Amino acid sequence: MASNVNETNDVTLTKPIRCIVKLGGAAITCKNELEKINEENLEIVSSQLRQTMISSENVVSLDWSKRPGNSDISCNVDSFGDQLSFDANKFIVVHGAGSFGHFQASKSGVHKGGLDQPFVKAGFVATRISVTTLNLEIVRALAREGIPSIGMPPFSCGWSTSGRNIASADLPAVSKAIESGFIPVLHGDAVFDDIQGCTILSGDVIIRHLAEHLKPEYVVFLTDVFGVYDRPPTEPDAVLLKEIAVSEDGSWSVIKPTLQDMNKQVEIIVAAHDTTGGMVTKISEAAMIAKLGIDVYIVKAATSHSLRALSGEVRGNVPDDWLGTVIRRISR
Amino acid sequence: MASNVNETNDVTLTKPIRCIVKLGGAAITCKNELEKINEENLEIVSSQLRQTMISSENVVSLDWSKRPGNSDISCNVDSFGDQLSFDANKFIVVHGAGSFGHFQASKSGVHKGGLDQPFVKAGFVATRISVTTLNLEIVRALAREGIPSIGMPPFSCGWSTSGRNIASADLPAVSKAIESGFIPVLHGDAVFDDIQGCTILSGDVIIRHLAEHLKPEYVVFLTDVFGVYDRPPTEPDAVLLKEIAVSEDGSWSVIKPTLQDMNKQVEIIVAAHDTTGGMVTKISEAAMIAKLGIDVYIVKAATSHSLRALSGEVRGNVPDDWLGTVIRRISR
Repeated sequence: MASNVNETNDVTLTKPIRCIVKLGGAAITCKNELEKINEENLEIVSSQLRQTMISSENVVSLDWSKRPGNSDISCNVDSFGDQLSFDANKFIVVHGAGSFGHFQASKSGVHKGGLDQPFVKAGFVATRISVTTLNLEIVRALAREGIPSIGMPPFSCGWSTSGRNIASADLPAVSKAIESGFIPVLHGDAVFDDIQGCTILSGDVIIRHLAEHLKPEYVVFLTDVFGVYDRPPTEPDAVLLKEIAVSEDGSWSVIKPTLQDMNKQVEIIVAAHDTTGGMVTKISEAAMIAKLGIDVYIVKAATSHSLRALSGEVRGNVPDDWLGTVIRRISR
Repeated sequence: MASNVNETNDVTLTKPIRCIVKLGGAAITCKNELEKINEENLEIVSSQLRQTMISSENVVSLDWSKRPGNSDISCNVDSFGDQLSFDANKFIVVHGAGSFGHFQASKSGVHKGGLDQPFVKAGFVATRISVTTLNLEIVRALAREGIPSIGMPPFSCGWSTSGRNIASADLPAVSKAIESGFIPVLHGDAVFDDIQGCTILSGDVIIRHLAEHLKPEYVVFLTDVFGVYDRPPTEPDAVLLKEIAVSEDGSWSVIKPTLQDMNKQVEIIVAAHDTTGGMVTKISEAAMIAKLGIDVYIVKAATSHSLRALSGEVRGNVPDDWLGTVIRRISR
């Protein structure tokens, strides 16, 4: 797909990107309540990201804006004396929409295109309002932890599609932000489509594109379950798939646990309970990233396991007490 | 300045842009209270923009997100039955920062650059959070009036400077949004600068750049006073300058009212009371737009006068009962 993408790929990074993190919509918003952020999770996720990005223990908020209910702006200038630099590991954050945007997009069918129809155009506006509201809140949550986060909504940042495949993306802008010491925060967004007028560009597709071109050391998907299971994780017998191997041709198979013909079985069961395309899309996008030689970790947000995955601790040999799913290329 | 700007200017518009509107920071925010929107003014301004952009009397909100204090999302699908199209006059909205962003930017000196200093970098993050918060609220206010508004923060949309002059700007993205029937909403923003690292790109400079390249029929600045005065408008003898003529070389003179040597006098007095560069910048930016043959109207927001200016009614001969300042090129 990279070949037909119309973009200037003069991406030069002085230091490789350490990690691209997906904050899953289900992990940072309340699934069952429209446009509600899961504040508790978001706070822990932001704190874990700080711990893995910035070595300093000194948390200095970079959000100097008023918070709802507060009349004050806080900006402790003195705190910056000790803070010699924000020299952070290079991360990119991409978040899903969760309970933001989904209502607006599905109601109006933005993903199917047709901007000449007033209702689709209205939905495009409404969807963008909802997802940029979430983006701003996530940027603020990260900034409060001292992470120099910069919102880069794909619609504004030159991302567009053609027949729902990525047609353009301003990757130099992402690199420039990273090189300047910021943490870009992208998200699933409504974008223009050359063929059908508009569509929804998902966070997972964005991650794959970024991974393909910016070659991070590893990718972490933070979700609301411990990883990928062989059946809906709510079922009593659900088995967590700890390691999935991806071969050269992109096909994948379960390495751990070793169950007979688990692969086929998983494929069928996953497909059956996945009406939104969520887990199938995730595995197939993850497999495409792993195919590039980039390890992918799917792990429950705001747990000790996510902290270990973010810090890179589980790279190489996965510890037995780590809960999550590793998807990696077969090295033979 | 256009000559050294590094951008693809393949801007093709099927129909000229009717108007670029500046929503002055002082008109839409409360000057004396940090990060507070002047809701009443913003609502009237949004309503006036709807009246001048969209012929339909049918107001259908395009903001389907929850509002603070509300638990509901409203989306009246049925309303779109009658709404055959949003075919709107082509407008671009640019807003200032007012009581948003200013604190964060000036505290940290973002305009002076130096992104390698932690405090400047922190200020860059804090400024962007504050101005994008305002942008989102303005996009929502316009959308609630049925205007298909799309936030296009300059930082994200490819705007950058070199020595504080515009070095790049993704104008094709603005045109594309307009051609697709949306109303782009830009704003003063913190951006990267090739030479000094970063700076503040003001809304007024953005407007001039847009006017230069996209050639709107006219430009309207909505402010918190009736127009440009010969001295601070709070002084009892202040005289509203109703017409300012700009000559080929960019120099300007007051045509109405006709006072002896008013020109020199104004220049001196304006400069003396204008510590933030606000009015001097505004007149000189406006003069540069007028020099291109594009009439500029400076008018008090949320008044009958602003509605008349926005609708284009005062073009040609300015009615005697219209309060505001016209800045136009001398046609001889």
